[in-house]
Amino acid sequence: MILVSGVAGFIGAKVAKSLIESGKVVVGVDDLSLGKLSNVPKGVIFEEFDLANTHLVKTLEKYGDFEAIYHIAGQSGGEPSYDDPVRDLNSNTASTLNLLSLALKSNDCVFVYASTVSVYGENGKTQLQQEDDTCNPKSFYGVGKLASEHYLRIYADQYGLKTRALRLFNIYGPGQSLDNMRQGMVSIFVSQALKSGQITVRGSSDRYRDFVYINDAVNAFKLAANYLNVGHFTFNISSGSATSVEQLCSAISDEFDTVPVQYEGSTPGDIHGYTGDPSRIESVLGWTATTPLNIGLSEMSLWAKETVE
Amino acid sequence: MILVSGVAGFIGAKVAKSLIESGKVVVGVDDLSLGKLSNVPKGVIFEEFDLANTHLVKTLEKYGDFEAIYHIAGQSGGEPSYDDPVRDLNSNTASTLNLLSLALKSNDCVFVYASTVSVYGENGKTQLQQEDDTCNPKSFYGVGKLASEHYLRIYADQYGLKTRALRLFNIYGPGQSLDNMRQGMVSIFVSQALKSGQITVRGSSDRYRDFVYINDAVNAFKLAANYLNVGHFTFNISSGSATSVEQLCSAISDEFDTVPVQYEGSTPGDIHGYTGDPSRIESVLGWTATTPLNIGLSEMSLWAKETVE
Repeated sequence: MILVSGVAGFIGAKVAKSLIESGKVVVGVDDLSLGKLSNVPKGVIFEEFDLANTHLVKTLEKYGDFEAIYHIAGQSGGEPSYDDPVRDLNSNTASTLNLLSLALKSNDCVFVYASTVSVYGENGKTQLQQEDDTCNPKSFYGVGKLASEHYLRIYADQYGLKTRALRLFNIYGPGQSLDNMRQGMVSIFVSQALKSGQITVRGSSDRYRDFVYINDAVNAFKLAANYLNVGHFTFNISSGSATSVEQLCSAISDEFDTVPVQYEGSTPGDIHGYTGDPSRIESVLGWTATTPLNIGLSEMSLWAKETVE
Repeated sequence: MILVSGVAGFIGAKVAKSLIESGKVVVGVDDLSLGKLSNVPKGVIFEEFDLANTHLVKTLEKYGDFEAIYHIAGQSGGEPSYDDPVRDLNSNTASTLNLLSLALKSNDCVFVYASTVSVYGENGKTQLQQEDDTCNPKSFYGVGKLASEHYLRIYADQYGLKTRALRLFNIYGPGQSLDNMRQGMVSIFVSQALKSGQITVRGSSDRYRDFVYINDAVNAFKLAANYLNVGHFTFNISSGSATSVEQLCSAISDEFDTVPVQYEGSTPGDIHGYTGDPSRIESVLGWTATTPLNIGLSEMSLWAKETVE
């Protein structure tokens, strides 16, 4: 049996669906504060629960041993973390402590955590962030995720739990929310192109990001859970390639019969550019991001048109 | 007007007393979960309040502008943080977010935070930890304190707040709890020597620490608050000298007519040894730890004898 937190969100739902297709029994948890019940894949045993609530362990113990826990729930944007940093801390950090405590009650559980590129912050690196680089998060979101990573390491060191933190770069693809205009660069631009026939960018056009298609990210989660070595491991989930905001907008624009692109203002806590070195996960788990951006954007745009129309 | 959190605890009470003696008006907050009402110095305007409660800001706004906030409250031991990591996170991290939010409402407030040597953890350094060294906290306590430091930095960068994190090494002296047998190496050994006529050490004799007398630490807090440069600063509050557990026990033993010392077991999350490089605070604030250990231990032992007898 496998537990997936954030099962009503973009990535959690895709991971759960893939696990079910592999024949696994999946318990999914979500507080539905950000996720939607309609996202929860068929076949998931669903529990609506606030993961920061310390009664979590008692509620989920009834399922017996979990072979893996995928902790994907949480407020997932840097900008929204400025609205209410305490809520962000509960959503992203207290939740991790509760699920780690649950994992310890299961026999030989592997704990896979959805961390983020935001833990690096502005650390002086301009290219290819590596997992051992200094972390100087610029947002409350990044601080809470980094604290969670430390908790994973302590659980591995002190209690022998198998823990893996996946530092997600810009994950995009079908299923991403087209309503949340504060999180997800690709989904924001696709939604704008589709709904208002123009893309409005808050920030400069020469900023750059490292985009990874959702199916590739799902594979990384599953490989990390199937890796049974003892200890704590941190992996970049990145392609290693930089795409500028201008390149991204141009590619999206092409998918929607050339919509105009405007630049104005900025986003709090925004980082100018980042790419991640994927060599560690390639050598340890054999994972690479295989979907080219133009293919991923085509899939995403097709799906968006079907969903909104 | 000045705010001191943790005013019923060892360090908070001493800082508040010293501020009152300097003629300042001091509002003190404490939830009395660990501190004692009897510790609160005369003249302090006392508010009993849980600092993790988000109503904190509304409660304290009535006092108007604070020229400085000393955030000293919090669960203060590595070992107890293993009992209930979520409580530790609320006590040490959510509390910081609430007080930072309060600081921002005051005109030109300086925010001084009691951080800890525990943020360094096991980072491969064997001597003289420096403020820019890698932080790999080994305890939940250290993770929560490190997250708070990141919050201070973000408040300085994003909102222009003047923030200072003091990484306290082993602070000891009169006023330290003689009842809490899980926190404070000096106070634990002094209490044992006094109450049971023997010192029982959990861990090896060649571990080493960097001890700073309470009056020196209080001076560091006041200097940090009086330093008006814009930005975030991190300072070690350390002597730069290593004292082994054996040397410490021997010195304490001498103060109590030679009590025997026994070594057994270990302490969870314990670090073998650490000392801190005090050169940054010396060059920036002109602070050094001036009280020799033997003088400080004499004062501490005299006070303990008067208190317990």
